[in-house]
Amino acid sequence: MAGMALCVGNGTSRSAAKLAYCCKGGRGILNSRLCIFSERPSNTVVFSVGAGGFCRATGVRFASRLAWGRTVDARFRNNTLVAAGAAMVAGVIAGFCHFQKAEMASRIAKDIEGERAILEKCKEFMSAPVTDIEVLQQRKEDMSTRMEMLIMETQAAFCRALEEVDGGKFKVDRWQRKEGGGGISCVLQDGKVFEKAGVNVSVVYGSLTEEAAKQMRSRGKVLKGKDGKLPFRAMGVSSVIHPHNPHIPTVHFNYRYFEIEEEDGSKQWWFGGGTDLTPVYINQDDAAHFHGTLKEACDKHHAQYYPDFKKWCDRYFYVRHRDETRGIGGIFFDDLDGPSQEEAFGFVRSCAQTVVPCYVPIVRKHLSDSFTAAEKEWQQVRRGRYVEFNLVYDRGVKFGLATPGSRIESILMSLPLTARWEYMHEPPKGSREAEMLEVLRNPKDWV
Amino acid sequence: MAGMALCVGNGTSRSAAKLAYCCKGGRGILNSRLCIFSERPSNTVVFSVGAGGFCRATGVRFASRLAWGRTVDARFRNNTLVAAGAAMVAGVIAGFCHFQKAEMASRIAKDIEGERAILEKCKEFMSAPVTDIEVLQQRKEDMSTRMEMLIMETQAAFCRALEEVDGGKFKVDRWQRKEGGGGISCVLQDGKVFEKAGVNVSVVYGSLTEEAAKQMRSRGKVLKGKDGKLPFRAMGVSSVIHPHNPHIPTVHFNYRYFEIEEEDGSKQWWFGGGTDLTPVYINQDDAAHFHGTLKEACDKHHAQYYPDFKKWCDRYFYVRHRDETRGIGGIFFDDLDGPSQEEAFGFVRSCAQTVVPCYVPIVRKHLSDSFTAAEKEWQQVRRGRYVEFNLVYDRGVKFGLATPGSRIESILMSLPLTARWEYMHEPPKGSREAEMLEVLRNPKDWV
Repeated sequence: MAGMALCVGNGTSRSAAKLAYCCKGGRGILNSRLCIFSERPSNTVVFSVGAGGFCRATGVRFASRLAWGRTVDARFRNNTLVAAGAAMVAGVIAGFCHFQKAEMASRIAKDIEGERAILEKCKEFMSAPVTDIEVLQQRKEDMSTRMEMLIMETQAAFCRALEEVDGGKFKVDRWQRKEGGGGISCVLQDGKVFEKAGVNVSVVYGSLTEEAAKQMRSRGKVLKGKDGKLPFRAMGVSSVIHPHNPHIPTVHFNYRYFEIEEEDGSKQWWFGGGTDLTPVYINQDDAAHFHGTLKEACDKHHAQYYPDFKKWCDRYFYVRHRDETRGIGGIFFDDLDGPSQEEAFGFVRSCAQTVVPCYVPIVRKHLSDSFTAAEKEWQQVRRGRYVEFNLVYDRGVKFGLATPGSRIESILMSLPLTARWEYMHEPPKGSREAEMLEVLRNPKDWV
Repeated sequence: MAGMALCVGNGTSRSAAKLAYCCKGGRGILNSRLCIFSERPSNTVVFSVGAGGFCRATGVRFASRLAWGRTVDARFRNNTLVAAGAAMVAGVIAGFCHFQKAEMASRIAKDIEGERAILEKCKEFMSAPVTDIEVLQQRKEDMSTRMEMLIMETQAAFCRALEEVDGGKFKVDRWQRKEGGGGISCVLQDGKVFEKAGVNVSVVYGSLTEEAAKQMRSRGKVLKGKDGKLPFRAMGVSSVIHPHNPHIPTVHFNYRYFEIEEEDGSKQWWFGGGTDLTPVYINQDDAAHFHGTLKEACDKHHAQYYPDFKKWCDRYFYVRHRDETRGIGGIFFDDLDGPSQEEAFGFVRSCAQTVVPCYVPIVRKHLSDSFTAAEKEWQQVRRGRYVEFNLVYDRGVKFGLATPGSRIESILMSLPLTARWEYMHEPPKGSREAEMLEVLRNPKDWV
């Protein structure tokens, strides 16, 4: 009742329309930022209506900035109505909107089920998601929610798999971006197997200039903003793993999603990402396994994805001033906005789900490989080249370093713990090091 | 006689005018690229007139691409007149031009003296200069010659001083730039004292687009080229020295000269440069010595040079994404094109002559300082920051990496042999590492 009064009190033609939608659809209310449902561990349901915007979501907030693992709690402010149990909520809404009680209860029960699923999944993450859980629950069908859940899942799955191999534990840092959003950085440094392993999630939002928005898309599409500004939401998971042993390759992956709102209110969205391998020495079987796993994931969605994105990867991870690629590639894509949002997301999900099977078997296979000081030194020289690519060419790093409010430690956690620059280093002809260089200078097909 | 006939044979109104100048002035001939004098070790003088342009300087060429230290020799082609001894050359020219023999002989003797001085100096260099010695001799009063001699002298003086301290020897590489010019890179790697010491000279020329020319000047002056192209000549000496011992700081210096020819044939020229220190730990005395030596050199030329160029240095060597300077600075300047070319050159010469007294006493002082593993690790973390500055912000590196035909190994020899990136590295409060960071975050005045 209090919530309703507030909505009506702030009524404009737009808010009235949204209110009608709220009453008609039952679910629409959740996506229109009008109200916030959130489930408390005690099974109470919080129904909150704020007063800003027209109804601001300040009423309920999960204590997601507390250390993860403690009891999740909710804070209560003005304008909140707390009702014990879903049936009671259904009754309240039905009372106002003259809906059939049974239909409403069934819908809400379904919603609560979906919200519970989100909460259950969140418990497996390395930390609470960046977005408040009740907001994710409220907008659980939005692509931004589904993608945030996917990147959190990917981070957790990859970190757990690496922890199992290494025996060490990831350090988990939550951070906030003053301008909007934040992230979760997981780093395992100087472990038994991994010299430096970083897995980062970020969810950021705010507004971009038209120029900055143009730069965000690799094909540079012109986007029209209101007064030159474009509200955006960007999220992604990215990781770089540098092992100690030179016979275990470095891996990198990144999967991301962007939304930008144009002047007329229409949303532009697209996905980007990729997974690529940087070995220190060529191992045909490893390369075939890595590329084969990626190809399999791609082929489920489009026969042209693997060949196209493999080529794109070789082009992107190219160190121009050395005339060599960073590694043996994998897949890379950007600006993916079709065939439908659902299908694009399905493809990205398939890719994200391959990061463990792509890489972890290779790590396990070489865990006990012995290596010489010279092999370690060659690894260090290659690490230097990795740094060169990341600092000179990588679009993500360049964008991050140039963006006010970026968390530098999360952007630069991709850099290796140690690296080396030898003047005029050139491996002897016929050596395994020369063989590696040959591949970097002439990218091969591996599957 | 053969040479003269050639000139006349190619006669145009412009060549005729130059010929007259050649005959009247005696010396003008050398600066107009018409003829080439060069002294052979056997005291014979080569008088050569080529046929290109209108008289191309292809007739005589010092074997400067041979290993330096071998007997300097000259190759002879068609159109060359070899006369034994200066008097005979004077006689031949006087015979044609009806000059007073005594005056001519005196002028030529003076020229030969100047040319001999160039040859003698060249013998002390790490390698023959980039420009053929006879061309330097011929244009010995040009600023480009004087600057090339200065950068070669600076390279030699600095390398010799470091070799004396280290006990090792610099590896000397001569390289050519396909598009015009070349350089001499001297590197001492993994010495007793120095982990990596690089001292590089380059002399390059060709033509720039107007856009590229604009970028070369830090104040971005618009330059008008013929059909958008501007002939340019650029030269400089640059050095970065990374010692093993964390109590010996890293030093960097660079002194450079640019000439660009505009559409109307007028020349724009300017100097740039600086010397700066990057210690791993703060040592007040070292800092005062370093800055004091630079201030003294600056004060000889202008009271405002040191304070202005000290501030410029702090601004330039700023790692924006870390909000810290690269080191404790020194001096930095660019676009110096006054008060006169002579005075600007005099200032640059003073600066170049301070590189040994600025740095070498500091190296000697700390040669036997003991250090811990933790101190070495902090040095490695600071080396990582050095790499970040050089690859992300340094204008010279960015320009070099983006310029076709650049010699990458010479550009990137400024990178340390080893570096380290620790996630979230923050020294404990009150530590000497924290003291260093404090200075990098708040640049101080040292003198």
